[in-house]
Amino acid sequence: MLSNIRIVLVQTFHPGNIGAAARAMKTMGLTDLVLVNPRQFPDPEASRLAAGAEDLVEGARVVGSLAEAVSDCVQVVGASARLRSLPLPHFDEPDEMARDVVENAAHDPVALVFGRERFGLTKDEIGLCSHQVSIPANPDYGILNLSQAVQVLAYETFKAWRRRPESGYRPTLPAEERQPSREQVGHFHDHLGRVMQRSGFITQPHARTEAHLHALFARAQPSRRELSLLRGLLASLEGHLPEE
Amino acid sequence: MLSNIRIVLVQTFHPGNIGAAARAMKTMGLTDLVLVNPRQFPDPEASRLAAGAEDLVEGARVVGSLAEAVSDCVQVVGASARLRSLPLPHFDEPDEMARDVVENAAHDPVALVFGRERFGLTKDEIGLCSHQVSIPANPDYGILNLSQAVQVLAYETFKAWRRRPESGYRPTLPAEERQPSREQVGHFHDHLGRVMQRSGFITQPHARTEAHLHALFARAQPSRRELSLLRGLLASLEGHLPEE
Repeated sequence: MLSNIRIVLVQTFHPGNIGAAARAMKTMGLTDLVLVNPRQFPDPEASRLAAGAEDLVEGARVVGSLAEAVSDCVQVVGASARLRSLPLPHFDEPDEMARDVVENAAHDPVALVFGRERFGLTKDEIGLCSHQVSIPANPDYGILNLSQAVQVLAYETFKAWRRRPESGYRPTLPAEERQPSREQVGHFHDHLGRVMQRSGFITQPHARTEAHLHALFARAQPSRRELSLLRGLLASLEGHLPEE
Repeated sequence: MLSNIRIVLVQTFHPGNIGAAARAMKTMGLTDLVLVNPRQFPDPEASRLAAGAEDLVEGARVVGSLAEAVSDCVQVVGASARLRSLPLPHFDEPDEMARDVVENAAHDPVALVFGRERFGLTKDEIGLCSHQVSIPANPDYGILNLSQAVQVLAYETFKAWRRRPESGYRPTLPAEERQPSREQVGHFHDHLGRVMQRSGFITQPHARTEAHLHALFARAQPSRRELSLLRGLLASLEGHLPEE
């Protein structure tokens, strides 16, 4: 349950990062934002960068310690490039982390914790985490901006949630993309075959040539609308061809 | 080859987005940035948001049309939430897109094209794309900030590249994380067994109890360093126990 997944930002320096993080969260279906001792908040920069996610900024809980922010959580994942040498169970890959977090969040609150832009998390704060995750990056320049790190981990979390059968997530397919039935494809093949013969391209049904073209069109996976377009083109051409 | 993967930003309105996009690119090993008619560039905001990626901003090629930006590319992927109803081959998932792009980029330049913050790409520009991709998002609020979209797609691209055997990517493991040998684990088991007996916890070797504890420690996957810690603790305890 995505509502059980909490994003915790510890002592964020730039209010703009809070706003951008809120936007990133909302695009990925997350809503629970908690700020531990933000340096400057509320702030117009936070609202500006939030764009359409101001509701998350306004609803953000502000607390005085990380312990307060995560006391009810069954899993607390510290996200930091710098944590890797510390002895917490470590997710090598954000997608593995996301699958585990989404599993646990089915029943209980879970937190993803992001540290200060420059200094990450303190030892005591790391001690409050049950796991850590880092985002594999360029070895020569691997520190993502705070709100970008939130975006990437929120993206993987949303993906893990979407891919669970019980989430009920259905991407909306525009009507034009509906697939044609085999019968409609058959009509198209017949129509194509008639045009090929009447134009003199083939003098009688030629299974091999027709099979090649059928395969070509099959790889293109025409939608119903596109098949209609092709039929319309064939009909226009047909009008100029001699009768069989 | 990551250097063959080009990020093209079309008529970006906010110079800050250019800088943030450059930073996102660099964290994911991408370096080729092309700007089509940026509204305001160069600009101090672009440099500021780039953080340590100013080299990408300074090296960015500025051109007058998308056609110029992608003429040498074998694949051009338009990234837009809005494109989905248009009849371009569509990647439903960024990770599928990334695998295809990285495959093609082994030999030739490939481009990921991002449109204007508000208006995306024009019909003519879409006509220059061979594929499109969208980032699955919250149906109620699904438009990511431009630089965030660059970060997510760059992240998936870098991931697809890392996972290819030929990339030669090796994450660096800190020395403390080296695994102990079976012999070292055996010594630990013996030591633990002695302490359990000398403390009176068990009065003779008790296979079942020892097996449970061995399994517990095995699940924890102690590093060499951690095993040393445990041995040190056992030694300190031993000093207080009666001789067997």
